[in-house]
Amino acid sequence: MAAELTAHELIARHRPTLDQALEAIRTRAYWSPHPEHPKAYGENGSLDLAAGKAAFDALLGTRLDLGQPGTDGWVDGEISPYGIELGVSYPHADLDVLLPAMKAGMRAWRDAGAEVRAVVCLEILKRISNRTHEFAHAVMHTSGQAFMMAFQAGGPHAQDRGLEAVAYAYVEQVRTPDTAEWTKPQGKRDPLALTKQFIPVPRGIGLVIGCNTFPTWNGYPGLFASLATGNAVLVKPHPRAVLPLALTVQVAREVLAEAGFDPNLVALAAERPGEGIAKTLATRPEIRIIDYTGSTEFGDWLETNARQAQVYTEKAGVNTVLVESTDNYQGMLSNLAFSLSLYSGQMCTTPQNLLIPREGITTDQGPKSYDEVVADLAKAVDGLLGDDARANALLGAIVNPDVKARLEAAAGLGEVALASREITNPEFPGAVVRTPVIVKLDGSKPDAEAAYMSECFGPVSFAVAVDSAGDALELLRRTIREKGAMTVGAYTTSPEVEEGVREVCLEEAAQLSLNLTGGVYVNQTAAFSDFHGSGGNPAANAALCDGAFVANRFRVVEVRREA
Amino acid sequence: MAAELTAHELIARHRPTLDQALEAIRTRAYWSPHPEHPKAYGENGSLDLAAGKAAFDALLGTRLDLGQPGTDGWVDGEISPYGIELGVSYPHADLDVLLPAMKAGMRAWRDAGAEVRAVVCLEILKRISNRTHEFAHAVMHTSGQAFMMAFQAGGPHAQDRGLEAVAYAYVEQVRTPDTAEWTKPQGKRDPLALTKQFIPVPRGIGLVIGCNTFPTWNGYPGLFASLATGNAVLVKPHPRAVLPLALTVQVAREVLAEAGFDPNLVALAAERPGEGIAKTLATRPEIRIIDYTGSTEFGDWLETNARQAQVYTEKAGVNTVLVESTDNYQGMLSNLAFSLSLYSGQMCTTPQNLLIPREGITTDQGPKSYDEVVADLAKAVDGLLGDDARANALLGAIVNPDVKARLEAAAGLGEVALASREITNPEFPGAVVRTPVIVKLDGSKPDAEAAYMSECFGPVSFAVAVDSAGDALELLRRTIREKGAMTVGAYTTSPEVEEGVREVCLEEAAQLSLNLTGGVYVNQTAAFSDFHGSGGNPAANAALCDGAFVANRFRVVEVRREA
Repeated sequence: MAAELTAHELIARHRPTLDQALEAIRTRAYWSPHPEHPKAYGENGSLDLAAGKAAFDALLGTRLDLGQPGTDGWVDGEISPYGIELGVSYPHADLDVLLPAMKAGMRAWRDAGAEVRAVVCLEILKRISNRTHEFAHAVMHTSGQAFMMAFQAGGPHAQDRGLEAVAYAYVEQVRTPDTAEWTKPQGKRDPLALTKQFIPVPRGIGLVIGCNTFPTWNGYPGLFASLATGNAVLVKPHPRAVLPLALTVQVAREVLAEAGFDPNLVALAAERPGEGIAKTLATRPEIRIIDYTGSTEFGDWLETNARQAQVYTEKAGVNTVLVESTDNYQGMLSNLAFSLSLYSGQMCTTPQNLLIPREGITTDQGPKSYDEVVADLAKAVDGLLGDDARANALLGAIVNPDVKARLEAAAGLGEVALASREITNPEFPGAVVRTPVIVKLDGSKPDAEAAYMSECFGPVSFAVAVDSAGDALELLRRTIREKGAMTVGAYTTSPEVEEGVREVCLEEAAQLSLNLTGGVYVNQTAAFSDFHGSGGNPAANAALCDGAFVANRFRVVEVRREA
Repeated sequence: MAAELTAHELIARHRPTLDQALEAIRTRAYWSPHPEHPKAYGENGSLDLAAGKAAFDALLGTRLDLGQPGTDGWVDGEISPYGIELGVSYPHADLDVLLPAMKAGMRAWRDAGAEVRAVVCLEILKRISNRTHEFAHAVMHTSGQAFMMAFQAGGPHAQDRGLEAVAYAYVEQVRTPDTAEWTKPQGKRDPLALTKQFIPVPRGIGLVIGCNTFPTWNGYPGLFASLATGNAVLVKPHPRAVLPLALTVQVAREVLAEAGFDPNLVALAAERPGEGIAKTLATRPEIRIIDYTGSTEFGDWLETNARQAQVYTEKAGVNTVLVESTDNYQGMLSNLAFSLSLYSGQMCTTPQNLLIPREGITTDQGPKSYDEVVADLAKAVDGLLGDDARANALLGAIVNPDVKARLEAAAGLGEVALASREITNPEFPGAVVRTPVIVKLDGSKPDAEAAYMSECFGPVSFAVAVDSAGDALELLRRTIREKGAMTVGAYTTSPEVEEGVREVCLEEAAQLSLNLTGGVYVNQTAAFSDFHGSGGNPAANAALCDGAFVANRFRVVEVRREA
């Protein structure tokens, strides 16, 4: 097939970016090629704010025909957490037709080699980047994120995570040379000499099982890691968050075709309500890699049952912040208040348990009792969300009825230090917007343990009174070990306590943020620098992104012969 | 603890070797720091032939007290395939004492960092290398390998594979820097600035489950990969091949202690006859990594049941050589005869099925019928093994009664083209020495399939008559897919057939040797250059050695704070 986009052209266009990404994952200094500011878009082929909104609006109520083989019907039904029906319909796949069709193009994709695959992936990301404003609305109206967060986390940050995965995948494949001449001396006899070829080969079809809250951010690493290592990729979005991934698949298919590859290397598997195709897909023999973000229950099911596949899971955890002492009390309160409020606490990285000594803590503003710390934190959250416009911009909308139900139940679990408030969104009256609840629990009471030792996903946090910093460390250790943690935070001015929390995090493999009081939050990680999850505790069996995330998505076949 | 060996000294001593190993795994050119010739030993602290033999003899009938905590008895019972009783007894462990003791030193080992761990591992390997002549006898009298093979494969080649694993482990840990300064511009506001630390942390205790035939060669990669990534390592040898790994553990403990680390970071778990402790060990919560070489049945059991651990398995496969045409008929026959004879075919890489078109093949000596090819191969094996001394030096001894029984049963599976002969070993009259059997099978007969589609480990090969090269490729594909393969060989002068076999190997992820007619054999792989297994077909879920083999043995914990 004659390619509109030649490999040469793609390499010229994207190799410099790939090289910068390779340098960034090596130094882990700040870097991103994807602008975070909405006004940075609108030139060089990218959609500006108005054009992005118009493009999104034009999608509503339409059929997104991806041209996939084996389409046996159309599915729809997404309702935005902001109350509007998207009305977009997507192809429903006959797997016995689609899966074989996805394999047809794999040989050419394999033979293209690691560099060409990388630059094709970068072209896909570039076109997604150009449509960031359109994707922002798609992410907003599926996840319930507020616009600015949907724009940033669903746009440039997700694209960064995708590019990071491409960089890791590329470097992993080229660490073995394409060929080698091997000459072994044999004393006085002629040396033994072999010519060897080393070919990275894919495992098969990768399955990406998307989540409701971060369809692109959590979906892109697995998608691009599998694609860049030569696999085909089938994307199974969450039924409530199809659009952002369907658009992604659309762009990927477009680029693959233009570059002369089979567009069926990337396909969508949307499902009918209640169809539950993830289990069927996950155990198909063609599926050799699975990337999953979601509940612990289904993640564990995948790890146990999808034995024919490499399974990468990000499940649930219970995130802890230890509050022991601080030299910046106001900074700590503001930072925590923001972390608890952002996207209504609907991040896998949002702190849930705040461990505070019942004797109180020392601060730059003098000693503060447990009650004072909790009251001051409640005040800080209240202050942050006092203005409805600002609250809406921070909180977004409650993503689904389960989160709302958990929030409402949380008030019954203990003494409410900060009650959840309902907030009206004037632009989207149908949006369910709630401020976070903070509940006081006594860490020494066995009946409280059921609450703080379970994940309560959503805008719920527990101010857990503990006997001492030592007790807090033991509880932290037990929580990570038994429940997993995506993040740990700690506030302390004591070298001993810092050393203690650091040691717990090293031993239990949890990512630690210390004394954050400014504009970086425990629940945020930056691609190319921060690891998201560790892959070493029950919250996730993989980290974004490291060598282990990519190294087993392909294998190297050696062909040797006498020289 | 004051170390006799400082980190500084170890780095000075071994860093150059580590750097050469890093270069070798990058170029995959020939390299080894471990001499293959027996006469190369005897200086600079290494034992020469006589001293090695004396050291081995001095071990016989003794108690190898490793000084391990929780020793609750002593086990022995190894009988050499050459007929002598070793009479060495080993500590039996109370796991509830030993496992916690192994964890005690892990913090210091973790804190030592990747470079110090690497050079400690290199010191262990160096001391093992110095005792290569002693290890050679230990390997010979547990595996049944002939002396020269036990010397080379059990000595320098095993040490190479261990060093290769250390190199991969090191480079994987240092690809993320120890620290990073992250500064993100914020337009007119102050940039966000974080200081980040990245610490490789171990998973826990690695378990190495050794095999009977290659205790050191197959044991060292997992042992050194886990140790170099900060884990403690418990070595559970095959009950018939304890001595080589017990000596390895002894050396490791010695070096760790001298370097100021806890010797209990490496320990031995020998078992009483019939105790079957592998299952118990493999599911202990302390065991977080397992390296296993052995039967498919138990490998599958581990993959299914040891869910708390990363499991790396090398199981069984059915290795195929396709014989389609050659321009060096005699070279092909000699090469194949050697491959079938070496160590009585008791290698996981030995060819089992020789697929030969029933119409015959073309050669530089004119066309040869199927019957002629098989008869000429039988003659080549007979010629190679015609002299008893040479036969003994190549064949070694049959490792256990199961192999002998399979060999005897094989003659009943079809027409015997080459009968197995009994050979006397004058030095060890108790050795069971047998030449290989070659059995003719018709690939189109369903009753033959049961034979050639099962692994028949030992000196048994099947000359399978196939209808065409195309049929051979289909059978090859099916064999790899269903049964797995550690190696594939092919002889062909046809570009189409070569392309066909290459494509099957790429699609089914099997390592391919083409047209070997000289001194390199399909069943041999060289560390730093050849991959052993692919990790992509049922014979093994990992390859020796690549990034995937080491990347998930540790995790990286990040500790970040405001700069």
